[in-house]
Amino acid sequence: MNNEPPFTRIVQALPQMVPFVSPSTLERRRRQPLKLRLGANESGFGISPLAREAMHEAIEGINWYGDPESYELRAKLTSIHGIAMENLVVGSGIDDLLGLTVRTFIEPGEAAVTSLGAYPTFNYHVAGYGGQLHFVPYREFHNDLQALGETVTKVRARLVYLANPDNPTGTYHTAASLQAFIERLPSECLLLLDEAYVEFAPPETVLPINYSESRVIRLRTFSKGYGLAGARIGYAIADRETITAFEKIRLHYGVNRIAQAGALASLHDPEFLRDVVSAVEEGRREYEVLARQLNLSVLPSATNFVAIDMGCVERACAIVDRLLERDVFVRMPSAPPLNRCIRVTVGTPLERVAFAETLSDILTSVVVADTNAVNRLYRNSLNLKARDNPRRIDV
Amino acid sequence: MNNEPPFTRIVQALPQMVPFVSPSTLERRRRQPLKLRLGANESGFGISPLAREAMHEAIEGINWYGDPESYELRAKLTSIHGIAMENLVVGSGIDDLLGLTVRTFIEPGEAAVTSLGAYPTFNYHVAGYGGQLHFVPYREFHNDLQALGETVTKVRARLVYLANPDNPTGTYHTAASLQAFIERLPSECLLLLDEAYVEFAPPETVLPINYSESRVIRLRTFSKGYGLAGARIGYAIADRETITAFEKIRLHYGVNRIAQAGALASLHDPEFLRDVVSAVEEGRREYEVLARQLNLSVLPSATNFVAIDMGCVERACAIVDRLLERDVFVRMPSAPPLNRCIRVTVGTPLERVAFAETLSDILTSVVVADTNAVNRLYRNSLNLKARDNPRRIDV
Repeated sequence: MNNEPPFTRIVQALPQMVPFVSPSTLERRRRQPLKLRLGANESGFGISPLAREAMHEAIEGINWYGDPESYELRAKLTSIHGIAMENLVVGSGIDDLLGLTVRTFIEPGEAAVTSLGAYPTFNYHVAGYGGQLHFVPYREFHNDLQALGETVTKVRARLVYLANPDNPTGTYHTAASLQAFIERLPSECLLLLDEAYVEFAPPETVLPINYSESRVIRLRTFSKGYGLAGARIGYAIADRETITAFEKIRLHYGVNRIAQAGALASLHDPEFLRDVVSAVEEGRREYEVLARQLNLSVLPSATNFVAIDMGCVERACAIVDRLLERDVFVRMPSAPPLNRCIRVTVGTPLERVAFAETLSDILTSVVVADTNAVNRLYRNSLNLKARDNPRRIDV
Repeated sequence: MNNEPPFTRIVQALPQMVPFVSPSTLERRRRQPLKLRLGANESGFGISPLAREAMHEAIEGINWYGDPESYELRAKLTSIHGIAMENLVVGSGIDDLLGLTVRTFIEPGEAAVTSLGAYPTFNYHVAGYGGQLHFVPYREFHNDLQALGETVTKVRARLVYLANPDNPTGTYHTAASLQAFIERLPSECLLLLDEAYVEFAPPETVLPINYSESRVIRLRTFSKGYGLAGARIGYAIADRETITAFEKIRLHYGVNRIAQAGALASLHDPEFLRDVVSAVEEGRREYEVLARQLNLSVLPSATNFVAIDMGCVERACAIVDRLLERDVFVRMPSAPPLNRCIRVTVGTPLERVAFAETLSDILTSVVVADTNAVNRLYRNSLNLKARDNPRRIDV
């Protein structure tokens, strides 16, 4: 790059990184397809027949640009939520909207707060826009609202990220706790509330949508409950001023036309969503029973995945590796104390049977393996440092 | 917004704007569907049957995330172009990649150069990242390479934007002229070469792809020749260091899985593309004949649209408005001297017949209209100021 101009200071300083390794990348690296894809919280329950039909139809119009305003979709969504059109913007998934929010609020050098081990794409964007990240450890597998609030004040954060229900733990806080948390936030800080899994959560977890005050930006997606992960479509709900700011900088022609059609049609099929949510509830109970049978415990989950506590990080790593050797993809959280768990998507009944068999089989071998073997597996695994707190928390 | 934190300085300072008004928005405003959509250079020739089939199939896997690396698509594209995988990144259309490039290279306050009246989304992103735009007027309906180069040096620009073949004129420079232009660029400036219409252009316009030196970022799309405008998929070709920088900040999960499948399948059907290109050539000739019959001239076009010179901005405005009254959507360039033209997409034979009839009809009435009526129409039209250079250039 003799004559190459340097990149911006922010880009130049960034390490090479991706938010996380994708299932497709894993398959290429291993030159082997995955048999069970239970690591990305995709929905094995598919999509609504209405969405399928709408998407097939939309292919016939794919030579035309989609509507950059996603008008019909926004009209339907805002009618469902009882808010104005000006309180909602559609983006190509929550990842897109996380980036948009960070770009709108965080000047280079300004602070953002998140939980240590929470969804990494928020961190990716904060780093990408030159913000300063501050991490707060989870407390008994929950986002530690008290400590998050204190850190916000201490570092004068502009944004605090919170997923409710949470990923990767699956745990949640009630709407009342969130409301109290928001009220204690300093006026210069907004809550960025990631509700990717909200469809699976009990009603008392869901903060009412209320814009008499505007301290919360909420992000939702069609990737999980609605099963449209590959379509890349989600939305943000916020006060009008924030949405107006988003409109000034967002990618207006970023959302696929077929995704728009699929999302809109999905909203006309609430029964499908209810069925998925019931099926997922059943699956969560099944994982809980499985864990008990294997002498393990699970974290309480209000999502479409379950975190199974393996007792220590070495064992969790070893099990993730052994599962992958058998073409079963699950993930484990990246940081202590969460990384003694493995995070398993609730698959279909057949997928769950296959997972239960494989896990049972592997656990037997890992349990009887000597410590050296486990440590070797661990060192070969995710390049994490052994900094796990071995204290077992029953949840 | 009593307690609302302010946005970043850049966002706060931006005016409310969209890159341009979409056909969907026009339809909503007019509460009437468009009969002829010839204003956004979409392809009336549709998509390859292979792409159609691949996209229908891809719907069945839409519950799974797509490959964030677009590996198969990149493998095919780089094999076609004879470059390494590390020289290419896929994004959700050229608009996405324009934003990515600006973000990677332009610090707030730094300069970028473009032609006055060129593709507005580059300008949108430069403003959105706090860059300083400098405009160079077109010269005889061509990008003025000499003046662009001089301005780059004068303002110490980091990026110069150029579409070849050009939008909105349809004109082009040869590869040899581009090469000479690149060689004269100061070392701190890169050429951002938008090749959205390259499939329609004669071979001598296409700069060879050569990465022994790395002064050019090239952007291509599946929206035009391949007819996948609604799918939002395109790619950037650049030196490895630039692609590596893009990887540090790009939206890894931004491209729709069906779009990936459609794009890949399109590349397996070069015959379809050739047919579209031939059909478009025929349509360009037809527009030329039409213009001659109407005592007008066209700019020479190497794209899927033709700019028809109406002689003065007032007349161009009036005709765009009259066409829209009859549900025919075309656009006109935003700045002099281009804005005495209307830009018309090459539609299908049937669309062209309908367009020819409507235009002929309207022209008669506009030609006979008195000057006051034309001026009234003009004032009611696009809120442009009358700053046209009335000198007629025959091209």
